[in-house]
Amino acid sequence: MAEASVGIVVIGNEILSGKVADTNSTFLARELREAGVELRRVTVVPDEIDQIVEVIRDFRERFDVVLTSGGVGPTHDDMTVVAVARALGRRVIRHPEIEQALRAFYKDKVNSAHLKMAEVPEGAELIRGGELRFPVVKIENIYLLPGIPQILEDKFHTIKSRFTGTRYHLRAIYSSKGESSIAQYLDETLAKFPALLLGSYPRLGDPEYMVKVTLESRDQAYVEQAFAHLVGILPEGTVVRTE
Amino acid sequence: MAEASVGIVVIGNEILSGKVADTNSTFLARELREAGVELRRVTVVPDEIDQIVEVIRDFRERFDVVLTSGGVGPTHDDMTVVAVARALGRRVIRHPEIEQALRAFYKDKVNSAHLKMAEVPEGAELIRGGELRFPVVKIENIYLLPGIPQILEDKFHTIKSRFTGTRYHLRAIYSSKGESSIAQYLDETLAKFPALLLGSYPRLGDPEYMVKVTLESRDQAYVEQAFAHLVGILPEGTVVRTE
Repeated sequence: MAEASVGIVVIGNEILSGKVADTNSTFLARELREAGVELRRVTVVPDEIDQIVEVIRDFRERFDVVLTSGGVGPTHDDMTVVAVARALGRRVIRHPEIEQALRAFYKDKVNSAHLKMAEVPEGAELIRGGELRFPVVKIENIYLLPGIPQILEDKFHTIKSRFTGTRYHLRAIYSSKGESSIAQYLDETLAKFPALLLGSYPRLGDPEYMVKVTLESRDQAYVEQAFAHLVGILPEGTVVRTE
Repeated sequence: MAEASVGIVVIGNEILSGKVADTNSTFLARELREAGVELRRVTVVPDEIDQIVEVIRDFRERFDVVLTSGGVGPTHDDMTVVAVARALGRRVIRHPEIEQALRAFYKDKVNSAHLKMAEVPEGAELIRGGELRFPVVKIENIYLLPGIPQILEDKFHTIKSRFTGTRYHLRAIYSSKGESSIAQYLDETLAKFPALLLGSYPRLGDPEYMVKVTLESRDQAYVEQAFAHLVGILPEGTVVRTE
């Protein structure tokens, strides 16, 4: 089976206007990688229906799974549900189970803003988890996650077991020499191991090393062979340490 | 004159695989906002030529200015220059001035990896700055910035004066009540001030406040009027403090 691909759509003026750093896609990137699932693209769009619809339409065709972050609260700037519904050509309905949970929680204080949070694209699946006050909403291949990091993380943990792939094996080499000095050895290694995921990350001002080289593959033997090859061809004194 | 729009393309497997958090787009978002320039979209793509070309082609049509971050070093995974050239239908050339600077810097140690960093799309403009060892490369409406945060920041400071717009005026209200309780007052304010940029950001577990509401406009009088209106209609005890 082909490994699943994922795209993340982050919705939020607060990110684009520099008020808030997007830590959600960083969290999700780490989690997906650990699960062996490939994150292919992240796009941040403003709180504008047309913008969200366009990116959702594109991502849902392009990737196996789409995760959205943000825009699912009770206020005017929360428009992800409407946008996802429109992207899929579905109506927005008030889901009776979420409505019931909201009414039970807010009791006689419940208002139309609370009940906006019961709205889902018609046909949505609700995924419940032990710790969750409200379920994760899924429609077709799209999971709607909130913008608040703590809640996003809780919700992702509930659906995490659905994301499984062949895990990546990672080795790293810390180089005392700069990228330009080791580039030819990286090229030679890639020529011999063309399927290797080989990264080269310079670091400024670190007394210990100048470049961190990462070698990855879903095939452990392959990455070990490539690692041994590269360590073997790098000039003496280049390798500070390995992981 | 219409205000300029900007899109950012971040190139890097290290971001998508969760190894490194993308702080560059956060930095640029803040800087652009401060300059009054609107950041409309950020997309993170992997180190794959076709992916980069596709997003660059899209962004250069869609936005007045495109900033790229990453993929401009000397190693095999640095493919932004080639991708941008291909997106624009231009050749890649070795720029004599950058080559000269590289040869002067590396002297007799200069190698083909160093000289890869002299490659630019044909017709590129070089922008020099006091502190910069190497110039910023610009081609058409695209600025190529590096992935290393310190160098990206230095390079952006060199071109910052090119990004000027009408600045945003920001007021904030910290609310003791949750989003659902204040949503109707936000809606009322937007009905009266439809051009207002109104954000609502819940905060979990903070003893001081539950929601930060931000009011913004490029028109200072407008944002002050909207601010006064919202503070005036919020129920007593809601406003913890304002900024």
